[in-house]
Amino acid sequence: MRASQDGSSIVLPDAASDVLAKLREKTPRVHCITNTVAQAFTANVLLAAGAIPSMTISAAEIGDFVTGADALLVNLGTFDGERRESALLALEVARHHGMPWVLDPVLINRSAPRAGFAKSLLAKKPAAIRLNAEEFRALGGGPDEAGVAAFAKATGCIVALSGSTDLIADATGVVAVKNGHPHMARVTAMGCAASALMAGCIAVSEERQIGASAALLILGVAGEIAAEHSKGPGSFAAALLDALSNLDGEALRQRARLS
Amino acid sequence: MRASQDGSSIVLPDAASDVLAKLREKTPRVHCITNTVAQAFTANVLLAAGAIPSMTISAAEIGDFVTGADALLVNLGTFDGERRESALLALEVARHHGMPWVLDPVLINRSAPRAGFAKSLLAKKPAAIRLNAEEFRALGGGPDEAGVAAFAKATGCIVALSGSTDLIADATGVVAVKNGHPHMARVTAMGCAASALMAGCIAVSEERQIGASAALLILGVAGEIAAEHSKGPGSFAAALLDALSNLDGEALRQRARLS
Amino acid sequence: MRASQDGSSIVLPDAASDVLAKLREKTPRVHCITNTVAQAFTANVLLAAGAIPSMTISAAEIGDFVTGADALLVNLGTFDGERRESALLALEVARHHGMPWVLDPVLINRSAPRAGFAKSLLAKKPAAIRLNAEEFRALGGGPDEAGVAAFAKATGCIVALSGSTDLIADATGVVAVKNGHPHMARVTAMGCAASALMAGCIAVSEERQIGASAALLILGVAGEIAAEHSKGPGSFAAALLDALSNLDGEALRQRARLS
Repeated sequence: MRASQDGSSIVLPDAASDVLAKLREKTPRVHCITNTVAQAFTANVLLAAGAIPSMTISAAEIGDFVTGADALLVNLGTFDGERRESALLALEVARHHGMPWVLDPVLINRSAPRAGFAKSLLAKKPAAIRLNAEEFRALGGGPDEAGVAAFAKATGCIVALSGSTDLIADATGVVAVKNGHPHMARVTAMGCAASALMAGCIAVSEERQIGASAALLILGVAGEIAAEHSKGPGSFAAALLDALSNLDGEALRQRARLS
Repeated sequence: MRASQDGSSIVLPDAASDVLAKLREKTPRVHCITNTVAQAFTANVLLAAGAIPSMTISAAEIGDFVTGADALLVNLGTFDGERRESALLALEVARHHGMPWVLDPVLINRSAPRAGFAKSLLAKKPAAIRLNAEEFRALGGGPDEAGVAAFAKATGCIVALSGSTDLIADATGVVAVKNGHPHMARVTAMGCAASALMAGCIAVSEERQIGASAALLILGVAGEIAAEHSKGPGSFAAALLDALSNLDGEALRQRARLS
Repeated sequence: MRASQDGSSIVLPDAASDVLAKLREKTPRVHCITNTVAQAFTANVLLAAGAIPSMTISAAEIGDFVTGADALLVNLGTFDGERRESALLALEVARHHGMPWVLDPVLINRSAPRAGFAKSLLAKKPAAIRLNAEEFRALGGGPDEAGVAAFAKATGCIVALSGSTDLIADATGVVAVKNGHPHMARVTAMGCAASALMAGCIAVSEERQIGASAALLILGVAGEIAAEHSKGPGSFAAALLDALSNLDGEALRQRARLS
């Protein structure tokens, strides 16, 4: 519910429906530098949505993989020297190709060195940073609309703050997505997978904030559908992949709860 | 069914019910140094039970993570130089904070160097060691009540021997838990996750043997419930997470099979 | 439907049924050097089928693990220096014991250095190489019966080319297996798990091509059964493990579609 850059009116559910169709048509390749806890679920979320994951962190080959990709994820969970080096190599290649990338600064509130590395990566201009309120606080961000808007303006990157309401801000405004389900916080790597999906959605979107917002709307609606078909976090995780795979624009339009 | 340290009588199902309530109320942070095969399932078991996992093994940040945790798991599966170094750093921090930790000496019966490292860690006084009969034999332990009791007395740590009957021993006695289901042996990382859950349960228990026994009772009962709602090991793994998340004290009391 | 080496006629569904029975009777140990994305699902596929996985890549202990194993998998996904070194050590031990091993050259079409390493490993005589058409092209192979037959003859190893029809070739002929389901391509690590299962099946088979073909028939039939009990890729992955665990020779004989 905001104006696009050319002044026309954009309705997010319609735009997200278009992003979903493009994911399946273009099957973007998303190279994920991510933690080993999150790798399998992240790959399965991408595959269910229509994107194609790759996940090597070997310095000898990451350049080739990023060159062949459409978007890049840099996730700082189970962060180590090899991942740090590979991330910097990968970002160099992404920059060279003008490729969008998403930063997920997992648990930087728990570790000062990890927070420091996140700040140095933020200076390298991700298309978007996706994080939760505690992680955002470690970067000095305030967990409300004013906070994300200010941070987006100051850094020039989209801020996607996950919570019971997701806030997605760029320099021009803030979108709020209220979809989702509490089970999502009981499945490991849900946030990590959201960031990977965001990279894929941005890759197929003309406007980056639309791509970022669409990713969280798509995942939130899939989560709501999954909750209706599950009995707890175990069956929920499988049902979410089913829902993502079966999702259509009509469900997005009917279920979107924005503000 | 044993006397507590102050002489009062303790009934395990009631005590386990209390541990389960405390897990959900205190949401203890469990830092897991564990193998990459087991990470995602272990994290999901902790989340389903009410605890909060973290899993970095990077030497640069593991000190911060352990300092912020309530319990530590050291699991020796897919063991390598970085994990060895990180484990020693983490144990130093845990010792400094008086934090309980659990040792899981995965498959030490398959590798002499791994068994040697396990022995050196055992000398650093874990709150508990959880393992199966073959792994216990590699440490010279005998797989019966007398064997676990003797080992617990000699080492001063709780011995939790998993099998069709789980035996949990400390210097004062042995508890036997008969709950569980054969499917549990057909899902990778079930034992690893049990050890992580044990660390979380010990963190919220006043008596360590109660915490250790409660963890195996909770997981065993959840496994029995899951088996009633599954058709094989794949649906069983998801159903076990559902059952853990939905478990209550009444189910523990009704289903506990001890001896 | 081909002649065995001693000239007798072999019917694959019967032979695969025999392989399945032997998997469960002998429970072969399969040591997997595989990528971290694929580890958990690969382990669960092996356990569901009846085999026993191990997965360390530590140079200090991999020799012990391979010595105690019945078959070895070398999978090149998320390939790095440590995995390269460990793979070479493991292959030395496997060669010493005359142990069969399977090469899975994941995504070598995306990286020239990875393709180069795959070629050097192929020269070390795997029992089988399992890959898809794009990966096969990176080795100069043509994705049809003539192509796999020529490659098998030139290299002396079984070529198992996965696709909507799987082709399994050795120097004496080609078997085509048409079983499977499109969902299999929507679950990460399905191909990696197929290669691991192939290693286990070869370990219990007198003829290697029978073992290799049986693995893909077993997985394909399990996939078809799973698709009948699932709503998307999430429930499909769990249902496939259930189907593998419950599979019997009758299902293999009734459902096999060969040519």
